[in-house]
Amino acid sequence: MSTEKATGQPPHPALLIPGPIELDDDVVQSMSHYAESHVGAPFCNTFGETLSMLRKLFQTTSPQSQPFVIAGSGTLGWDMVAANVVEPGDEVLVLHTGYFADSFADCFETYGIKATQLKAPVGDRPQLPEIEKALTSKKYKALTVTHVDTSTGVLSHLQSLSELLARVSPSTLFIVDGVCSVGCEELHFDNLRIDVCLTASQKAIGCAPGLSIVMCSGRAMESFHNRKSPPGSYYGSFVNWLPIMQNYEAKKPSYFATPPTQLVHTLHATLTQVLSRPLSERFEQHKKMSQKVKKAVADLGLEQVASKPENQANGMTAMYLPEGLTPPEILTSLVKKGVVFAGGLHREIASKYIRFGHMGVSVMDEGRGDIERAIEALREGLAEVQREKGDKS
Amino acid sequence: MSTEKATGQPPHPALLIPGPIELDDDVVQSMSHYAESHVGAPFCNTFGETLSMLRKLFQTTSPQSQPFVIAGSGTLGWDMVAANVVEPGDEVLVLHTGYFADSFADCFETYGIKATQLKAPVGDRPQLPEIEKALTSKKYKALTVTHVDTSTGVLSHLQSLSELLARVSPSTLFIVDGVCSVGCEELHFDNLRIDVCLTASQKAIGCAPGLSIVMCSGRAMESFHNRKSPPGSYYGSFVNWLPIMQNYEAKKPSYFATPPTQLVHTLHATLTQVLSRPLSERFEQHKKMSQKVKKAVADLGLEQVASKPENQANGMTAMYLPEGLTPPEILTSLVKKGVVFAGGLHREIASKYIRFGHMGVSVMDEGRGDIERAIEALREGLAEVQREKGDKS
Ligand SMILES: Cc1ncc(COP(=O)(O)O)c(C=O)c1O
Ligand SMILES: Cc1ncc(COP(=O)(O)O)c(C=O)c1O
Repeated sequence: MSTEKATGQPPHPALLIPGPIELDDDVVQSMSHYAESHVGAPFCNTFGETLSMLRKLFQTTSPQSQPFVIAGSGTLGWDMVAANVVEPGDEVLVLHTGYFADSFADCFETYGIKATQLKAPVGDRPQLPEIEKALTSKKYKALTVTHVDTSTGVLSHLQSLSELLARVSPSTLFIVDGVCSVGCEELHFDNLRIDVCLTASQKAIGCAPGLSIVMCSGRAMESFHNRKSPPGSYYGSFVNWLPIMQNYEAKKPSYFATPPTQLVHTLHATLTQVLSRPLSERFEQHKKMSQKVKKAVADLGLEQVASKPENQANGMTAMYLPEGLTPPEILTSLVKKGVVFAGGLHREIASKYIRFGHMGVSVMDEGRGDIERAIEALREGLAEVQREKGDKS
Repeated sequence: MSTEKATGQPPHPALLIPGPIELDDDVVQSMSHYAESHVGAPFCNTFGETLSMLRKLFQTTSPQSQPFVIAGSGTLGWDMVAANVVEPGDEVLVLHTGYFADSFADCFETYGIKATQLKAPVGDRPQLPEIEKALTSKKYKALTVTHVDTSTGVLSHLQSLSELLARVSPSTLFIVDGVCSVGCEELHFDNLRIDVCLTASQKAIGCAPGLSIVMCSGRAMESFHNRKSPPGSYYGSFVNWLPIMQNYEAKKPSYFATPPTQLVHTLHATLTQVLSRPLSERFEQHKKMSQKVKKAVADLGLEQVASKPENQANGMTAMYLPEGLTPPEILTSLVKKGVVFAGGLHREIASKYIRFGHMGVSVMDEGRGDIERAIEALREGLAEVQREKGDKS
């Protein structure tokens, strides 16, 4: 039931949480890289190629777009937005579809930016008419949306938000938290007129955790350049990082803070794999496998947290447990079957649901059989736990 | 001339810059770890043990001491100090022995803290009488010192600073930038009454880059708890990280931002090695090999940037080049001989000197022969470049 047969990695339970995710063998191997100078030609080449590949991953061809890759995690991307792209006194509108909007709003407040949240019932998302009303009632410097909220599995629709912004508030920056979507959901940075998309290495891209990845539009960089006050972060300051990223992309050495050389190699290996096939195929495969999972979940009589089909993410499924079963009971049973799922994260419903991540190599490499085995384990695990509880009562 | 024979790693030039440094084979292997849940029991155990081992590395037994390990780099440790331990309006005294004090001072200013620098001529360090004068002229919330300034190889004396503080300004927090010293210079956190020591994974500890490591005293944590304003950073906030670190050390799961699971394994592997022998042996061995390097440098007629023997670090040597030779010329020649040294970093003298890092496995495992080969390469490289230049002129 573990991944032992499918991969060259030592036996271990299949990691099917919504990030970190299972890694491809080549990706795992790429991590054990010998020590290299962060300013030597070999590493400058690797980092330069990695930054160029990120442009392809985000589907941006505008030379004004600016990628950043920094030791950290997805969360650091919020700091980078709040400390560089907007300024103290600015107002931002945060669309809330779960846990991660609350945190992003907290982050804005840390840097003196007023964050107004637009909430929806758990499992749903704010609707266009109310977003339009909010956007026209006040001048917002930025609108943020969590593309996939990992606490609920709710998918937001970037296309309609982009169109709404163009129509009613074209000067508002469009900021996308793509931590749980980049690499598994269709996301065309230029066509969607996104100004910042931030993500992390450990989710649908299929890399190890430890990297904050941010793509900025020319307009976002202009907003940074036009700041009246200096950035509110030192480690996350674009003043410090912009010349470094530009130099690395030009394969030239420079130093602000030491980059994690091995993880950059791993990201390089991951992006090389991801980009070896058309991205559209990758998104289609995630949709197909997601449909399979969602059908299995429905067949088990379980309800999804994301309540409407059009709100449901393609890289994860959050599902309510049958009445009387708790997350620890079912998660423990799954681990015994070699499958790791995640517990709940949304405070209001945390004790009632579990999360199944289906992203990256587990989805793309059907030969591994990860998804089938996980569905089977879920079926058996639910039956067993229910039987045991029945026996006891 | 490469490390090909000495280690099981693929052939590559020996990395002898003052960080990142050469890695032990087991450490390199530990990086290619399969994906794991950041909240699963196996990883909680690994992270918990790692935090406990850090207490041993810093030689602190006080239960009030608090370690932090976060995806980032040494620089992030500055943000953590400036955003948590001191507050806007506080004044800090920054002892300047090179490049890194300027940057730490910049970081303080970013968070609204007034940083006053006490400078010394290049290659020297501020003297106790002037530090005493500064400390008694004004109420400083904190004194910071770069234990080893990596741009000059200047070593500061923590013992005398600690005694001075106890005598003239006992309420001033003692903050040590140990990025280039923890793991190669004697540093007893409790005995020296250090309040914060920050470091990074990629130097004398011998791990891969990508981790910010901070140890705080009970007094530093009290200063954090008594803040009147919230921390100035979100990603680097102790409010966010303190419960997480406490939980991990108790081997319990919790989440603020995803830790770099593979790098934590690597740090675990590194610390296990470092702590397998008495730390005093490690420091002695670094001293011994440093003496060997410094004697060879003197025999070559080269002068050290750190001008007095008592100012000279044991993990690196910064040396002026002979008149007429440039860093790129000699560095290129060294790379051809399979050895990577670093160029200059201190702005005032950058074009005149190079840096040789002698830390970690290259020093501890004499069987690798890294240091001997580097000295030999330096001797030959200097002679060759001088000969070529002579031929041309
Ligand atoms: C949507 C979303 N945003 C932000 C984050 C924060 O990323 P990290 O945990 O890498 O700091 C996560 C993490 O799961 C996420 O799912
Ligand atoms: C003394 C000192 N402090 C701070 C830093 C910054 O660390 P990092 O490059 O890991 O951000 C360095 C890096 O070389 C250093 O040598």
